[in-house]
Amino acid sequence: MSFQKLDDLCRRLEALEHALAILGADEATHMAVGGGEKRAEAMAALSGMYHRHATAPEIADWIEAAETEALNEDQTAALREFRRHHTNLTCLPADFVERQTAARLRCEQLWRGLRARNDWTSFQPALEGVVTLVREEAAMRADVLGLSPYDALMEQYDPGNRAADITPVFAELKAFLKDFAPQALEVQAGRLAKRPLKPLSGSYSIEKQQALGLAMMEAVGFDLTRGSLSVSHHPFCGGVPSDVRITTRYRTTEFLSALMGILHETGHALYEQNLPQDWSHWPLGKARGMAIHESQSLFVEKQIGRNPAFWRWALPVVDTHLDENWSLDDIQPHVHHVARGLIRVDADEVTYPLHVILRYELEQELVAGRLEVADLPEAWDAHMRDYLGLSTIDNPADGPMQDVHWPGGAFGYFPSYTLGAMMAAQQWAALVRDHPDTDEAIAKGDFSTANEWRRDRIWSQGSRWSTPALMERATGEKLDASHFIAHLQKRYGG
Amino acid sequence: MSFQKLDDLCRRLEALEHALAILGADEATHMAVGGGEKRAEAMAALSGMYHRHATAPEIADWIEAAETEALNEDQTAALREFRRHHTNLTCLPADFVERQTAARLRCEQLWRGLRARNDWTSFQPALEGVVTLVREEAAMRADVLGLSPYDALMEQYDPGNRAADITPVFAELKAFLKDFAPQALEVQAGRLAKRPLKPLSGSYSIEKQQALGLAMMEAVGFDLTRGSLSVSHHPFCGGVPSDVRITTRYRTTEFLSALMGILHETGHALYEQNLPQDWSHWPLGKARGMAIHESQSLFVEKQIGRNPAFWRWALPVVDTHLDENWSLDDIQPHVHHVARGLIRVDADEVTYPLHVILRYELEQELVAGRLEVADLPEAWDAHMRDYLGLSTIDNPADGPMQDVHWPGGAFGYFPSYTLGAMMAAQQWAALVRDHPDTDEAIAKGDFSTANEWRRDRIWSQGSRWSTPALMERATGEKLDASHFIAHLQKRYGG
Repeated sequence: MSFQKLDDLCRRLEALEHALAILGADEATHMAVGGGEKRAEAMAALSGMYHRHATAPEIADWIEAAETEALNEDQTAALREFRRHHTNLTCLPADFVERQTAARLRCEQLWRGLRARNDWTSFQPALEGVVTLVREEAAMRADVLGLSPYDALMEQYDPGNRAADITPVFAELKAFLKDFAPQALEVQAGRLAKRPLKPLSGSYSIEKQQALGLAMMEAVGFDLTRGSLSVSHHPFCGGVPSDVRITTRYRTTEFLSALMGILHETGHALYEQNLPQDWSHWPLGKARGMAIHESQSLFVEKQIGRNPAFWRWALPVVDTHLDENWSLDDIQPHVHHVARGLIRVDADEVTYPLHVILRYELEQELVAGRLEVADLPEAWDAHMRDYLGLSTIDNPADGPMQDVHWPGGAFGYFPSYTLGAMMAAQQWAALVRDHPDTDEAIAKGDFSTANEWRRDRIWSQGSRWSTPALMERATGEKLDASHFIAHLQKRYGG
Repeated sequence: MSFQKLDDLCRRLEALEHALAILGADEATHMAVGGGEKRAEAMAALSGMYHRHATAPEIADWIEAAETEALNEDQTAALREFRRHHTNLTCLPADFVERQTAARLRCEQLWRGLRARNDWTSFQPALEGVVTLVREEAAMRADVLGLSPYDALMEQYDPGNRAADITPVFAELKAFLKDFAPQALEVQAGRLAKRPLKPLSGSYSIEKQQALGLAMMEAVGFDLTRGSLSVSHHPFCGGVPSDVRITTRYRTTEFLSALMGILHETGHALYEQNLPQDWSHWPLGKARGMAIHESQSLFVEKQIGRNPAFWRWALPVVDTHLDENWSLDDIQPHVHHVARGLIRVDADEVTYPLHVILRYELEQELVAGRLEVADLPEAWDAHMRDYLGLSTIDNPADGPMQDVHWPGGAFGYFPSYTLGAMMAAQQWAALVRDHPDTDEAIAKGDFSTANEWRRDRIWSQGSRWSTPALMERATGEKLDASHFIAHLQKRYGG
């Protein structure tokens, strides 16, 4: 009876989520430029309705009553996940959320202008305001959830992830990468000395690149009857599981960046398209969290899409669509290109984790109050010199001002990126252990076994398990840096 | 205080309308085919939320209290229109609406299959069910509104329109057209005997036709920063005033049908884009109704878009985009083509009103109970033979089964189409009386005076006046068939 009330509520919430997801995707792809103000008003009002519906005072009673009702296994799991969702939604007072939203929006808006002018001094007070509120938020979440403050922040993105488990794994990876990154660069230099890089530059119409992208999406498993590909300034995977909207942006002078972007978003899309449909209105039916989601995009982009076996199949497809004639030896140096740089989003597989670990370390210090915002440029620079041998001290725009996450108040989110990369490598290792002929299948364009493996163990599970439990059930072991390290050594170790 | 509550409510309703409008346009243009079921669920749930918000029991008290508050002129008008809107929304009991919705959906679904098989016998009982409920609906609406049953139905679409005013105007038009249609056909035959028709057939890419359409939309006044053109199976004008979505469909063998369709939808779009923005969340800020809306689409499509002056400017634009070389004498017979036919939506300016008047007469009989559904095929055939000299007795699919309106329960809507055509002619006559050089301006591609005239008198008025009052204020006189008759005589009278 009470469970039924929660079930009905979930259907109303699903309708509002559907509207918000499609309106959001539409805004980035098809909305007229002048439609933004009204769209923002509509989405704010719909978000408010969602929040009012989802946090109505009677819901806590429904949850409590439902816990005494006779429920089947799915319903029990749904109720457990609904309670978790409800606790996370209601653990901050409404007036705090309003103050925090205002501070985040103001800091984000300032950030857009000030980053372009490399103006840390004007940015610092706004970020200090955000960090003060994040510390308050973390304390309140920690109190309700019985977790440490930083774990309570991570819990929003990856339920069950704890710094105590992640820190040693990241420490192992960091120790490896600080030595390995320079080695990989040396190996690359040696190869390029022997065989000069064939330039990617050419002339590729958007229509042809789009046709290629759609062909790749479909081959890799994207259901084109329940999703689409279009263009936006920032690539994303949005929409709803029955109609997944992925986007990319094209350069007409080279084809690789759009194609790799499409493969990345296709990885996200496969997860969404293959979530359990009967649970779609429950929190239980949603994707587990950011790290697992990133593991699915990186599985397709890195484990499959940068695998030489994949390119044995893919090159003829590329050549057919673009009237090209690439050899594996010519494309591979582009697909496996490594470079030290200041910017996280431009980094490769080898250096990316160092960008993330830097942020993971600094944001824990910030949340704990052991580091102040005023000292961030120096701390960032020190880490950057240590990990990548680069300085940002005179260039905060490409240092602590480079990402929108902190101005937007998202602390505890960065680790998900590298956890996703490690999880993808661990999933790949488990898949290959179960199916040693995976490379040969992929070289023939047969992705069915790789997809069935993920469908069974990850996609169909929705939010039934915590992030670490899902990984352990899927791969047979806890998160372990060795798989990702072995993957990097094999691909970049020479 | 109570007015403020209504104002806040209107903003919430506007957000839901925004979501429904964009989701609806998206469904027809960009949705993945497999997304339909979830989209339907989401839209049904959002419509339910809209209805619950808009009909909450406290609203009647708010309206009553607001009527005693000190309001400015706009607020007073907004409150009046809100009450009208609220009365129309709440005058039917919820269980009746549910029964009616089910009967309509079932009849519409049956209709899709049975029309294709020309199967009146199986269709008749479903339509009888719909008509029975429409009679009940009309009686309930009439009771609440103090109107006759048929007027109460029309009141939903065109507030203030009354059969007592429309019937004599339609009678005059019908009497004229029964003689004039054959004359127009004769004049056309004479012209074609002298100068044979240049075939429209050619090869026109969708890209080029779309670029032409966008150029025409913009020239005619469409704000491309607040709207867009895309493709759908059935052309429509949807979206929201800040982001108007118009669609067309293209044939690659001729360009005229898509272009005229675009001009028609642009007429609707100009009305939406130029509604008073400050009132956008109030019913007062919405377009007045179906007849006025149709007058705006037909103003652009027929009064402007089929005017030889327009083509003096437009032909070089067409030629530039499509690499064509049409003369005015060659295109005009296509733009002014007249033909007797069975199908309303395919009819031209001259014969279209006879299709509408036939339905107007029959649906009044049906609603009043003087005609039964079983006798509809004979009655339709008799009217069709009288008005257009065509029989449908063996072909109900192209007779009383040709339109979705009646299976969908929309009675009282058909007159709006021809009222719109007459209003457009009357508006054009008033414009030309005020600005005798309108043809010359349009021949130069200058639509500013024609647009300013409509902006002042129609678009900016929102729903401030009843349909007949708006027309009388805009044109200085009540609806009068003479303007439309004069228009047809001038254009088709030889």
